[in-house]
Amino acid sequence: MEPVLPFAPDLSGAAGHLMGTLHQQLRAAILDGRLAAGATLPASRKLAAELGIARNTVTGAYDLLVAEGYVVPRQGAKPVVADLHTRQRVAAAPPTMEDPRLAPFWRTPWLPPAPRALPERSFRLGVPDHRHFPHALWRKLTAQALQAFSKRPFTYPPSQGLPELRSAIAQHVAFARAVACTGEDVVVTSGAQQAFDLLARLLVTPGETRVAVEEPGYPPVRAAFAAAGAVLVPTPVDDEGLCVECMPDDVRVISVTPSHQSPTGAALSLRRRMALLDYARARNAVVIEDDYDGEFRFGGRPLDALQTLDRDGLVCYVGTFTKSLFPALRKGFVVAPAWARAPLAAIKYGADPYADAVTQAVLAAFIRDGHLARHVRKMRSIYAERRIALLEGLAAMDAWMTPIPSEAGLHTAVRIRDPEQMPRILALVREHTPGAQSAAEYAMGPLREPVIAFGYSVIDVEEIRARMAALRAALARQVPV
Amino acid sequence: MEPVLPFAPDLSGAAGHLMGTLHQQLRAAILDGRLAAGATLPASRKLAAELGIARNTVTGAYDLLVAEGYVVPRQGAKPVVADLHTRQRVAAAPPTMEDPRLAPFWRTPWLPPAPRALPERSFRLGVPDHRHFPHALWRKLTAQALQAFSKRPFTYPPSQGLPELRSAIAQHVAFARAVACTGEDVVVTSGAQQAFDLLARLLVTPGETRVAVEEPGYPPVRAAFAAAGAVLVPTPVDDEGLCVECMPDDVRVISVTPSHQSPTGAALSLRRRMALLDYARARNAVVIEDDYDGEFRFGGRPLDALQTLDRDGLVCYVGTFTKSLFPALRKGFVVAPAWARAPLAAIKYGADPYADAVTQAVLAAFIRDGHLARHVRKMRSIYAERRIALLEGLAAMDAWMTPIPSEAGLHTAVRIRDPEQMPRILALVREHTPGAQSAAEYAMGPLREPVIAFGYSVIDVEEIRARMAALRAALARQVPV
Repeated sequence: MEPVLPFAPDLSGAAGHLMGTLHQQLRAAILDGRLAAGATLPASRKLAAELGIARNTVTGAYDLLVAEGYVVPRQGAKPVVADLHTRQRVAAAPPTMEDPRLAPFWRTPWLPPAPRALPERSFRLGVPDHRHFPHALWRKLTAQALQAFSKRPFTYPPSQGLPELRSAIAQHVAFARAVACTGEDVVVTSGAQQAFDLLARLLVTPGETRVAVEEPGYPPVRAAFAAAGAVLVPTPVDDEGLCVECMPDDVRVISVTPSHQSPTGAALSLRRRMALLDYARARNAVVIEDDYDGEFRFGGRPLDALQTLDRDGLVCYVGTFTKSLFPALRKGFVVAPAWARAPLAAIKYGADPYADAVTQAVLAAFIRDGHLARHVRKMRSIYAERRIALLEGLAAMDAWMTPIPSEAGLHTAVRIRDPEQMPRILALVREHTPGAQSAAEYAMGPLREPVIAFGYSVIDVEEIRARMAALRAALARQVPV
Repeated sequence: MEPVLPFAPDLSGAAGHLMGTLHQQLRAAILDGRLAAGATLPASRKLAAELGIARNTVTGAYDLLVAEGYVVPRQGAKPVVADLHTRQRVAAAPPTMEDPRLAPFWRTPWLPPAPRALPERSFRLGVPDHRHFPHALWRKLTAQALQAFSKRPFTYPPSQGLPELRSAIAQHVAFARAVACTGEDVVVTSGAQQAFDLLARLLVTPGETRVAVEEPGYPPVRAAFAAAGAVLVPTPVDDEGLCVECMPDDVRVISVTPSHQSPTGAALSLRRRMALLDYARARNAVVIEDDYDGEFRFGGRPLDALQTLDRDGLVCYVGTFTKSLFPALRKGFVVAPAWARAPLAAIKYGADPYADAVTQAVLAAFIRDGHLARHVRKMRSIYAERRIALLEGLAAMDAWMTPIPSEAGLHTAVRIRDPEQMPRILALVREHTPGAQSAAEYAMGPLREPVIAFGYSVIDVEEIRARMAALRAALARQVPV
């Protein structure tokens, strides 16, 4: 059979550049795989006739491809497409991280975790429920922002974030979290993780700076500090949150989740809050407050942010819209004390300058018009019902586990009464309440006490009840007390 | 006059929590400035009557505010709002970068440049023209992406970028720049600068790794390498681009703009391209190819990317949509060789995990449906006319300046014939052709030759002609040859 091209070259508008245009289109097809390695090219005479062009235009294009190595000529036969994969990578090192071209830290195979396959409704942590999000409203605000955007010359918006978004965030955290600030104090980031990464690089002298992290604690925060060269000081947590009095004397940065410890859910007690600020003040240390789901509070007197108590510019407050809106928005922020503001602006500019103007404008309008406060209020009452259903279910399993007191957030954790039973209980948890996680997944070393965290943000009350009952029944059958 | 609140507290739905709700609203008003420092609060009796609540509810809320320091009580007089600025920052260090809490690099006052005030139409560099952008189409694609987004559960999209965007980018660069790759090789970044920052951190061992940068060259790239701890090796550029043979023997990373040197506009010659790859191959060095405006090519035979010539996985290709679409999109990418892929994924995950799903989906659709290729083609012909007008204008000033040969990009640079005349010429350039920049602004040290770059992306043909003529007339009057 005569070889044919799997696409029709488009030579319209190529007047005077027929050969170049044909060459370019063939090469593009080879590069993007439409013309696969080993495919035979049509005879030049035949292709020329098909395209209505001179034969030497085709042979010229073929010759160029041969010269460039995209095509292999064959004596007395039609040319075939070269194996680019071989061509490109034959001499490349295998995909290892041991390559000496890499900086030492990145040679150790620290890889992102593989995503877990979970049912849509599960006890997983950290994802808000999409079914109650005001999608139509978000679309409308986006259309409006794009309309306004289309009327202005293109610019490089400031790397600290759009001024209107920074003001809106300042008003929002003042109201919702009693964080005293103005838009000048706010730096918008791509989610909370970029904030941790920038702060780590700003505050850590590689190989020197000792950074206290919660043990167990959120692994990506740890990873950001480790990548910046920090000496990590894992510090235990209990029912009052981070054990401030357990920290050695020479810590210079403390990373903490005061509202809702990740993953135990404990709130940092007032006593510990004061002790932490005293510690930082006395040693010129910096506190990084990760308020990752502090907006969802269910207690009587809501806990303010730690930053609210800070009179001395000790606290960098990190917030995010991942839990209150959605993760793929990629919007978080730092409220920085005065001394950190200029360097934070400088490091943000070097790492990720300028703002994504449209998304930021949409978020600014969403906050300014009161939709964020309204959405959080609505979701809080939805999550509150689920939380109660979960707590009721856990209460019925009191023989095996005790909930860790928690007044905020989107998950609740339990302590397993008998550590020896942990493996069997965890196996049943994974079977009956998928998505729930052992705190060991958040820990650097072995934990003194086994803890399991149950999320309630993407699962309905009825299913919580049914799955809790199933878990309880399985425990009763298989784990003697 | 009796003091009144500048807003009406909303106590609806606060049944049972009247005091707490009032306290929270007053505090929020103080924090966000609606109740300014020094403002007098209404008498508790009067406010209670206005709100229809018990007086001791108001005094209770006032007492809480006093206890927290938001309000200052006054013997026998109404309480006033505290000066939070003082309260918050009295003990904070002044906003200097010399703070010992900062890592050493960030203590030196390296600050982002202040934005320059320029007329909308000017000879500035690096901003595309918004008037020809298909805004309506972008809005339509955004609405479609948001619609699809609203139907799916919220997730954390992969940090390397949406798979459909990575494939679309791979096909695009294969076609437009002859860069051989698949979506697997692509990591989406927040503009090109994030790519430089991540690559710098990946490849630089602080205090050790020597990095060749173009002199003059794009300052933010230099800044990213410096922040990662690189030892910078400024390397001169001439009419053939980076002077590869000028590099010392121990360079491990080379940052280069082969299509269109920033800011001289010179293309890296084929001879130098081969020499650069030989250098990197022989020394196990890495080339970072910054193809920042390589899509706009005006010559007969377009220059491929340097990556196209690379058979050995030496080149990390960095692209951006800042010039082809718009800066506030914040989308760039790296095409990484096999050995760098896993560590690049790891560092991206730690620094800025997850993707902004909606914007990435819009961009993917825009590329996939051929709109990007079409838009670049349209803009290329618009920019081509402006480029010709500029070159004609510059040719008439041949007595004072010679254009540096350039076949691509959105600006053209000239060499000033008599260096002694540079200050006077630059003053006239600033007056008559605002936005044009001296290459000295891109240099680390003094330059051997004075160079001025003129952008033609946001100025019309007529205005280019008029302003060039005005500049020529001024030169003829004031700068004798």
